[in-house]
Amino acid sequence: MDFSSFLTSLGTSFVIFLVLMLLFTWLSRNPDNKVIYYPNRILRGMDPIQDGSRFGNPFAWIREALSSTEQDVIAASSVDAAVYFVFLSTMLGILVLAGLVLLPVLLPVAATDHSVRSSNTTSNGTFNDLDKFSLGHVKEKSSRLWAFVIAAYWVSFVTYYLLWKAYNHVSELRASALMSPDVRAEQFSVLVRDIPPPPEGQTRKEQVDSYFKAIYPDTFYRSMVVTDNKEVIKIWEELEGYRKKLAHAEAIYAELTKSGKTEGIRPTNKTGFLGLIGKKVDSIEYYNEKINELLPKLETVQKATLRDKQRGSALVFFTRRATAASAAQSLHARLVDTWTVMDAPEPRQIIWTNLPKSFYQRETRQYVVYTIVALTILFFMIPIGIISAFTTLANLRKLLPFIKPIVKVDAIRTVLEAYLPQLALIIFLAMLPKLLLFLSKQEGIPSVSHAERAASGKYFYFTVLNVFIGVTIGGTLFDSFKDIQKNPSSIVSLLARSLPSNATFFLTFVALKFFVGYGMELFRVVPLIIYRLKRKYLCKTEAEIKLAWAPGDLGFATRIPGDMLILTIVLCYCVIAPVIIPFGVLYFGLGWLVLRNQVLNVYVPSYESYGRMWPHINTRVVAALLLYQVTMCGYFAIKKFIYTPILIPLPILSLIFAFVCSKKFYRFFQATALEVACQDLKETPNMELIFRSFLPPYLCVNKAADEDQFEDALSQVSRSASFA
Amino acid sequence: MDFSSFLTSLGTSFVIFLVLMLLFTWLSRNPDNKVIYYPNRILRGMDPIQDGSRFGNPFAWIREALSSTEQDVIAASSVDAAVYFVFLSTMLGILVLAGLVLLPVLLPVAATDHSVRSSNTTSNGTFNDLDKFSLGHVKEKSSRLWAFVIAAYWVSFVTYYLLWKAYNHVSELRASALMSPDVRAEQFSVLVRDIPPPPEGQTRKEQVDSYFKAIYPDTFYRSMVVTDNKEVIKIWEELEGYRKKLAHAEAIYAELTKSGKTEGIRPTNKTGFLGLIGKKVDSIEYYNEKINELLPKLETVQKATLRDKQRGSALVFFTRRATAASAAQSLHARLVDTWTVMDAPEPRQIIWTNLPKSFYQRETRQYVVYTIVALTILFFMIPIGIISAFTTLANLRKLLPFIKPIVKVDAIRTVLEAYLPQLALIIFLAMLPKLLLFLSKQEGIPSVSHAERAASGKYFYFTVLNVFIGVTIGGTLFDSFKDIQKNPSSIVSLLARSLPSNATFFLTFVALKFFVGYGMELFRVVPLIIYRLKRKYLCKTEAEIKLAWAPGDLGFATRIPGDMLILTIVLCYCVIAPVIIPFGVLYFGLGWLVLRNQVLNVYVPSYESYGRMWPHINTRVVAALLLYQVTMCGYFAIKKFIYTPILIPLPILSLIFAFVCSKKFYRFFQATALEVACQDLKETPNMELIFRSFLPPYLCVNKAADEDQFEDALSQVSRSASFA
Repeated sequence: MDFSSFLTSLGTSFVIFLVLMLLFTWLSRNPDNKVIYYPNRILRGMDPIQDGSRFGNPFAWIREALSSTEQDVIAASSVDAAVYFVFLSTMLGILVLAGLVLLPVLLPVAATDHSVRSSNTTSNGTFNDLDKFSLGHVKEKSSRLWAFVIAAYWVSFVTYYLLWKAYNHVSELRASALMSPDVRAEQFSVLVRDIPPPPEGQTRKEQVDSYFKAIYPDTFYRSMVVTDNKEVIKIWEELEGYRKKLAHAEAIYAELTKSGKTEGIRPTNKTGFLGLIGKKVDSIEYYNEKINELLPKLETVQKATLRDKQRGSALVFFTRRATAASAAQSLHARLVDTWTVMDAPEPRQIIWTNLPKSFYQRETRQYVVYTIVALTILFFMIPIGIISAFTTLANLRKLLPFIKPIVKVDAIRTVLEAYLPQLALIIFLAMLPKLLLFLSKQEGIPSVSHAERAASGKYFYFTVLNVFIGVTIGGTLFDSFKDIQKNPSSIVSLLARSLPSNATFFLTFVALKFFVGYGMELFRVVPLIIYRLKRKYLCKTEAEIKLAWAPGDLGFATRIPGDMLILTIVLCYCVIAPVIIPFGVLYFGLGWLVLRNQVLNVYVPSYESYGRMWPHINTRVVAALLLYQVTMCGYFAIKKFIYTPILIPLPILSLIFAFVCSKKFYRFFQATALEVACQDLKETPNMELIFRSFLPPYLCVNKAADEDQFEDALSQVSRSASFA
Repeated sequence: MDFSSFLTSLGTSFVIFLVLMLLFTWLSRNPDNKVIYYPNRILRGMDPIQDGSRFGNPFAWIREALSSTEQDVIAASSVDAAVYFVFLSTMLGILVLAGLVLLPVLLPVAATDHSVRSSNTTSNGTFNDLDKFSLGHVKEKSSRLWAFVIAAYWVSFVTYYLLWKAYNHVSELRASALMSPDVRAEQFSVLVRDIPPPPEGQTRKEQVDSYFKAIYPDTFYRSMVVTDNKEVIKIWEELEGYRKKLAHAEAIYAELTKSGKTEGIRPTNKTGFLGLIGKKVDSIEYYNEKINELLPKLETVQKATLRDKQRGSALVFFTRRATAASAAQSLHARLVDTWTVMDAPEPRQIIWTNLPKSFYQRETRQYVVYTIVALTILFFMIPIGIISAFTTLANLRKLLPFIKPIVKVDAIRTVLEAYLPQLALIIFLAMLPKLLLFLSKQEGIPSVSHAERAASGKYFYFTVLNVFIGVTIGGTLFDSFKDIQKNPSSIVSLLARSLPSNATFFLTFVALKFFVGYGMELFRVVPLIIYRLKRKYLCKTEAEIKLAWAPGDLGFATRIPGDMLILTIVLCYCVIAPVIIPFGVLYFGLGWLVLRNQVLNVYVPSYESYGRMWPHINTRVVAALLLYQVTMCGYFAIKKFIYTPILIPLPILSLIFAFVCSKKFYRFFQATALEVACQDLKETPNMELIFRSFLPPYLCVNKAADEDQFEDALSQVSRSASFA
């Protein structure tokens, strides 16, 4: 691609971005759409439309994003979101500082080296104008290479400095969030796993209570033994389903009545499979009947579950934050695989089914999952290649004879022939984040945030290994791509083939990512359409409508690896082709701006992990830096630069940096420091409320029922000091 | 060496052992020697002579050792000693179980293979009769090798099984010692290091107190800030020296008076260098004067030290064991390199000078020491070779002309020529344990037991790498030996040269070790002679005599690596030459017996670490096993046994075993489990006594002086709740 066509592609992307931004401005003014563009504000009880200033001009959102502080982000979303912005701004800072030195120095140094053009490039037609500004344009063994060596050092030191500052800052953010005087249930409790079988004549509840009362005579409050809830969940979900359907039917009935139709007409449904077959019944009566049938059954099962299905895991509650923090860090039993104690996750993010998994089960699962993921990352092309080989049109015609008439249509056949081969790959790539999250949960991790971190790490290795290294070194992924895809249909392989220079390919890739990607992020066209359709045809009750616009969270598990890929690309090319730096700056700058808006207005966090994501981010940034430094060593060696060994200290420095960082900061991200946990609270914590916040909804006996009965059912599990 | 000369050497060793044992029996009957043979009992307040049964027959001590229980050992010595016996008996068990299967199976299998004798051995004269029973006697590719493969598996599994049982047993020993209802000072305190500079207007003492009072409002008792005691120690040592000399002079005077000499004759001494020059003075008067001069000076310096020389480290005391145990495991500050908290060591084994060393200083020192040790282990022969090259007689004559007349004597010259070259090596090997202990202390380790563990680890690698691998593979050590030693003087090189087969060499080495080594251990001839001489010519006061027979401790730092070397040798040869197994059994059996006697009667432990040595022992036994398994793979490959890969799972299994062991048990050896620490105590702990037990003697103001003054000086450092 020559320079002008590169500019054209860039210009097109920019125009798309502008159009998307204008569409966003226009659509977000419509009060009907406010639940799509301002759901976070609405859920926090603010009316975004009343605040008129927002609609002054199409750039109002930018002003708002820029003027928001870190505290606003924490208040509107979570510490995790604030930490994500620290990540974006640190990366931005690294690239800006790198660009300030590298662009004015390296571009002239490379461009003025005229010795290489004639000797190195034979085909004048394909010579890339951008190549003039890259390291490739500098002659072998040239002393101009010294400038690039110094640049490599500069970038590394800038990264160390800003990462160190960021780690310290995040650590402070975490500390101030954890020492907040607000009462947070999870700070008063610990999760106990691997409880040995209770001694004869003691229930598990009594066992746990006596164990912890002996160790913490003053601060132990109560315990909640984890139960096997499979059965109760099944009934509860059935009940909830009927309740929703009842509300839906009642809403329809109210609508019908309001619209003046004959009162006799009531909503009906069939009782059989999917409501398609079976006896026709009056919906409201039928669902009421079902609910009344299920309610006593649920209560019976709830009681039975609490009494008989106790598992070897429990949540233990303390009356002091510092005791809980200290207990989570201490060894309780002589054998490490019994009475394992750790921080309790937030109630909303506990993965209940993982809690009773035993120590060795967890360890084994972990290694099995690691093996599966490693195999997936390295060899995922093999099964997909096989599937692709089978899903050709000719094969399909044999296997599924009934599609023959469809295939005869020329247009359809062309499309099918074009897309069938990579269908398996596309499906695989779309499913991969979900698959990785599923696998991470299978490890026995007790909280959603931890599972997302684990999935994010796996996804990072997948993208870096397959996308970045795959493209750059021309490895298996893209070779296989070519083998599978006889048709030049996917945009990625088209780009890869038509651009001989990887640098220019990645330049365009980054540009596409930020202009189109962030434009779409802002525009939110898919949620908008889905919401509009649902509202028009499906939703009847308030709850249903609310569900239709539920904004979701930032999705760290895929977002961070995506950013990391860009960072890896930009870092690795920043010295070789410094023109990539402005693109990286735009990616992280625009990302910061757009996501600031999204975090303040749209997304609602589904958990709070107080910035535990940061050590993982830090490690991966250092990993990207290491890759960059190793690549640089390689590139200089290719350039026959005899002082290449001068770069060898860099990877060693990175390893030392990572080691020192983890030594200094990491433990605080694993556990809560006691000086932080011992801060005074605003009010005396209501321990009963804290305890109840951990009760999963399907174990809460119907609140309308008398409280005594509830206490009764519960007292089977919790006979603590306060009740004695 | 042929079979008969091997038996002769063995027989000689055995006779030496019998003679030493009889000498021991005879000498230990003499009441004058009881302080040499029963110091432990005497210090525990028992009179060994009164218990007449001990002198019934020369084997009485064996009966006594065999009938003693583990609890006796713990009572007489320490948990560490009991753990050492667990080690000895586990090794004994492994070798007995291995021998029971290997000896009856492998010896006939090897001896009946007649195919190899004619083809493999050309020189009939040097053919070793013992070789007939070894793996070397089996033909290449023979199917008889299967028996040896199975033997290799058997030995490994026996080791896993017994090690696992031993680890569990030691863990129980540790737990029951830690949960004992006796009050032990170190269980109520933690060691705090890396305290940041105190804020303006606060002393360090106030800073520490307020910090811990906020976190542990109910259980914090008091703190003791570590001070820089260099100056006070200097004065205190001077004072103690004068006190001892005064007691000595008074004892002499009393003797003189008693013996009826003229009363006017009083002991005198000269005040100058070493008491050889200077003015002659009356000793008693002079020392009294000096003491009276130093006492007020000491008090002034003590006060100044406590007030002005506080360092960034402290001991913090709690009123509950569980709190101290929990505090030692918890992260206290957000930054890991500040307020580092760990278990307090016993008062007697604290290395005070290491306490104020900062986090990064410790880390750096550790890596520097590791590097030095690695270089020492790998390249120690180079400097020693150079020194040896310089210390030839010819060189010495040039450098030190005054020795010329001595060298002219023929006999002396021969001896010097024989021993000079390896003098450097002998000195180095004798100094090595001390050097390694010194280096370990330089790492900044806060307790003697920990430093000894670290030194023991280093010594293990030295012996295994240089002695075992050096001899077996014919590596650098022994090659260098030959280069240095032109004269066949040292017994080791003599043996190494005269025995072509390493197996036979090591057989004799092990036999020598147990017969002569344990004989000498029992006989204690060196302490006996030193004690007798000192008592006759030097000691006057009771304290001096007591010091002369002070028995010392077991010396784990060199003893365990020594045993480990034997274990490594026996394990590595047990399949190749199973005849070594009985020798290993004898080594550990005899060792158990002799040391049981020594521990019950002689040695006095200088610290108690509650079996913290075990994880290190376990790791090194597994390392020895790994070495054995790898060697086996190598040997079978040499035998061209095509099923050699069948042995590959063994090293992997060992790694998994080590990993699982450390996962399951190790953390309890690093920290105290809370369920152990929360056991009830016999009595309410006297916190003031606990606090004082940590005060080093040089900071205790003269006890004769009024207590008020002491409190006053101390209150500069400790103004705690109990005094407010």
